[in-house]
Amino acid sequence: MHSSDKMLKPCPAEDVHFQMIQREKIISCPHACGEDKEKDLHMKHRDSNFSNMYSSELLPSRNGEKNTEQFLLEVVNILFSYIKKTYDGNSKVLDFHHPHQLLEGLEGFSLELPDQPESLEQILVDCRDTLKYGVKTGHPRYFNQLSTGLDIVGLAGEWLTATANTNMFTYEIAPVFIVMEKIILKKMHEIVGWGENEADGIFSPGGSISNLYSILVARYKRFPAVKTKGMAAIPRIALFVSEHSHYSTQKAAAVLGIGTDYVIAVKCDERGKMIPSELEARLQEAEKEGYIPFYVSATAGTTVFGAFDPLAHIADICEKHGLWMHVDAAWGGGLLLSKKHSFKLGGIERANSVTWNPHKMMGVPLQCSAFLVREKGLLESCNQQCAAYLFQSDKQYNVDFDTGDKAIQCGRHVDIFKLWLMWKAKGSCGFELQINRCMELAEYLYYKLKRRENFQLVQNTEPEHTNVCFWYIPASVKQIQLASERNRKLHKVAPKIKAMMMEEGTTMVSYQPYGDKVNFFRMVFSNPATRKSDVDFLVEEIERHGKDL
Amino acid sequence: MHSSDKMLKPCPAEDVHFQMIQREKIISCPHACGEDKEKDLHMKHRDSNFSNMYSSELLPSRNGEKNTEQFLLEVVNILFSYIKKTYDGNSKVLDFHHPHQLLEGLEGFSLELPDQPESLEQILVDCRDTLKYGVKTGHPRYFNQLSTGLDIVGLAGEWLTATANTNMFTYEIAPVFIVMEKIILKKMHEIVGWGENEADGIFSPGGSISNLYSILVARYKRFPAVKTKGMAAIPRIALFVSEHSHYSTQKAAAVLGIGTDYVIAVKCDERGKMIPSELEARLQEAEKEGYIPFYVSATAGTTVFGAFDPLAHIADICEKHGLWMHVDAAWGGGLLLSKKHSFKLGGIERANSVTWNPHKMMGVPLQCSAFLVREKGLLESCNQQCAAYLFQSDKQYNVDFDTGDKAIQCGRHVDIFKLWLMWKAKGSCGFELQINRCMELAEYLYYKLKRRENFQLVQNTEPEHTNVCFWYIPASVKQIQLASERNRKLHKVAPKIKAMMMEEGTTMVSYQPYGDKVNFFRMVFSNPATRKSDVDFLVEEIERHGKDL
Repeated sequence: MHSSDKMLKPCPAEDVHFQMIQREKIISCPHACGEDKEKDLHMKHRDSNFSNMYSSELLPSRNGEKNTEQFLLEVVNILFSYIKKTYDGNSKVLDFHHPHQLLEGLEGFSLELPDQPESLEQILVDCRDTLKYGVKTGHPRYFNQLSTGLDIVGLAGEWLTATANTNMFTYEIAPVFIVMEKIILKKMHEIVGWGENEADGIFSPGGSISNLYSILVARYKRFPAVKTKGMAAIPRIALFVSEHSHYSTQKAAAVLGIGTDYVIAVKCDERGKMIPSELEARLQEAEKEGYIPFYVSATAGTTVFGAFDPLAHIADICEKHGLWMHVDAAWGGGLLLSKKHSFKLGGIERANSVTWNPHKMMGVPLQCSAFLVREKGLLESCNQQCAAYLFQSDKQYNVDFDTGDKAIQCGRHVDIFKLWLMWKAKGSCGFELQINRCMELAEYLYYKLKRRENFQLVQNTEPEHTNVCFWYIPASVKQIQLASERNRKLHKVAPKIKAMMMEEGTTMVSYQPYGDKVNFFRMVFSNPATRKSDVDFLVEEIERHGKDL
Repeated sequence: MHSSDKMLKPCPAEDVHFQMIQREKIISCPHACGEDKEKDLHMKHRDSNFSNMYSSELLPSRNGEKNTEQFLLEVVNILFSYIKKTYDGNSKVLDFHHPHQLLEGLEGFSLELPDQPESLEQILVDCRDTLKYGVKTGHPRYFNQLSTGLDIVGLAGEWLTATANTNMFTYEIAPVFIVMEKIILKKMHEIVGWGENEADGIFSPGGSISNLYSILVARYKRFPAVKTKGMAAIPRIALFVSEHSHYSTQKAAAVLGIGTDYVIAVKCDERGKMIPSELEARLQEAEKEGYIPFYVSATAGTTVFGAFDPLAHIADICEKHGLWMHVDAAWGGGLLLSKKHSFKLGGIERANSVTWNPHKMMGVPLQCSAFLVREKGLLESCNQQCAAYLFQSDKQYNVDFDTGDKAIQCGRHVDIFKLWLMWKAKGSCGFELQINRCMELAEYLYYKLKRRENFQLVQNTEPEHTNVCFWYIPASVKQIQLASERNRKLHKVAPKIKAMMMEEGTTMVSYQPYGDKVNFFRMVFSNPATRKSDVDFLVEEIERHGKDL
């Protein structure tokens, strides 16, 4: 697809201001239309020959409007064809290739960066190839992550966000988005159960950063000197999390200069819930050793088991010891929108801060993560550096709406619009329905596996979240008597099955070892497109690939 | 536009699985087509009545394909109309409203979140309103930030990225994007001047986080114990930056537990460049006071003046003292692509790490920030927490391509594709041209203002970057004899002029005080759509609003 003679041509970009050649030839191009011709987006008959056209002929080029329209429509054509395939249960989830294959270039799909421009024709081919060799994360049989699905209204929101191309640091350049963030934060505060005016928050680039914010503000609240004098000026502090919590607390402790050694993992029960008496014991131990406990992160929806820590009990302990209580509800927060399931987060209203990722259970496109904190002004006093040259206080509007001083970032991506637009389109009740349905699928899978030969559930209790963890046990493994040998073999089963499923591209599901448990599959549901038939498919697919291992 | 009877209807979302009503009525909708009807995107005659349709009738709903196509085309229609307005020099840059006006709801544009779904008609109206009350950051007369412009190919890249909706933490779910990131990082290493195989890097959520990465890895490299034992286990350390550097170093020092007091600001010369002898002096002072200097951040393109620190000289000092040398080239990095201007960053090849934001001078849509580090493996050993349940090592592909352990995030937004696609479309030579042209505009403005009555340049040297800083001095201020009184008045001029320009929506440009200098305008150029006539316009506009102040 690469024009072999491009080195001989003058650089087309040099035409950017003065190019006058408005191409009007009615030539249909064999490459860009290619395979998707019949699925064309009903647009005006294509009258641009992209193989001789360059990006310099798009806007802001003088005659670029028409070219731009045609080019963008061609792109949307490609995207819509991809969306249709995504939702077509019979299509593949992925077309797997190894990294070295992509590096070497597949069927003319070269990732190398040129000195000279390539034609818009090539750009369109590149777009198609990029999608072809990618993974359809919205596919009903894509179960690999906590974030799955492709919400159409959310997608439209992202397209608009990209077109608006602005930044969250000041009201003056993102007025609507800033106000939307304020309104959504307020709504989330209400849902969490906080009073109307006491709370604050910010949307951050993912749950790990939201969790980092929680430790950052908790530390600053207790030891404000840390901002200027650093950790050297404050006593040794310790954080407490459940042993099943997300590793981002460790990451944050390393970043914040606290040190991962001071993140104390509290034992969990069989279901993966933090044991309150163990928390009490660890707190006392730490104090005895001369550390100052200051922060507990309870998890509402653990990554692997989907467990909910007993929040109310943990809140009692935090209150008693005067500790900051954070709830990492990145995964479980969505359940707050369900009248049926929200009780699992009972006690969250007593937390000092909460992480809640709408890009997980609420199905919002990546990225969309909220950090909520139950004290107004704290985020700002913790993070502001009074850079008057960036955040002028003598503007014509109420500068309380500028958010730059609340963030650890300067520029901040607009993650709010897609969530706002989805909320408008679904209403709270639409989210509830969608979440309840995912919960029903988890229950369906759980009872299916309970009855099924060759499958073994990791936990024999009904799922609290949409996580269902299980082993597939081939006959060859089942017959091994010696437990250690049996485990050694079983450990290799899930990776092998997953590799085969990926090679065929039929489905994707996560696996992992955990503690003393060898590799097992972790199913999760967050995609509204998934049906029971897809669950059935997955189970059969595992059996098909696994039975002769 | 809000249906008043929505509380009486059953929740349409409940239809999501079973809705069968495929609407085929040939009704044109007065609202969604409205004002932009004549600019329609030549699509098939609209045969959907969105006022009775809900998001539950889009994909994955059983008959949702056609509705989805129509809905997305309608959205693209709105976006394309916005893009045309953006590039239309005669359109307004913004339609300013105060926060309270947006909160109260403007002409039916309510930002409140409903319990019940709203119709797709309303969603389309909301999209249009969101753009209407926003700021056209791609407008040729939008000069407010370092990131301006709306690159069409970059925009197409963002639309595709949103549609792919995946995450950068593992190769298995983002194979193409992961390999693209590797290839672009390698290209950037080459451009910086580093050997092929020694370097590493990561794309992060903005320049502030990239700068934080630099301090994080520098600290870990010198004191690896900090990761597990925290700041308490290492000596007191100090960082050095120019007094004109970006405030993100202070922010990062607060976050990292170093403390802002240990960020030493080194004096600059009149142009805003760090004075090497002052750096030497501060280093010695710090050592004398018992701190360990370990890191110097040189700025290549300061925020306000666009100054370049003398990198080679600073590199000598860092080498002599064994310090980590970071270059914050968030703003200036783009100049590396220009044969004419890259000499300003001479010495950057000796840096240990570099921040470079393609979303600034290279015109890539927000966000796109690269952190580059000249040592393979360091990012990973600094940040990895060995979460085997997330980053399995027994996959079928080379897991060196998984990037999750390099990041301080877990999930990471795909920021790479738009940059890759733009590079394909422009070639390195296209970026060069675009950057040179912005530099020429800065020069044009500089000489224009030098000759012009009532304007006074803050610096009387040709701009090194596209920043041009100046005061507008109305006659009433000029005549004031007493300097302090004159300054007090002058300080109020730029904010007033900016407020008037924003109220009228004609243009946007930044102002700020700096050190002992009262509020002045800072013009910057990064938008390829800007022409000399736009520069002329700005100058006249300032005069028009300012002359009677």
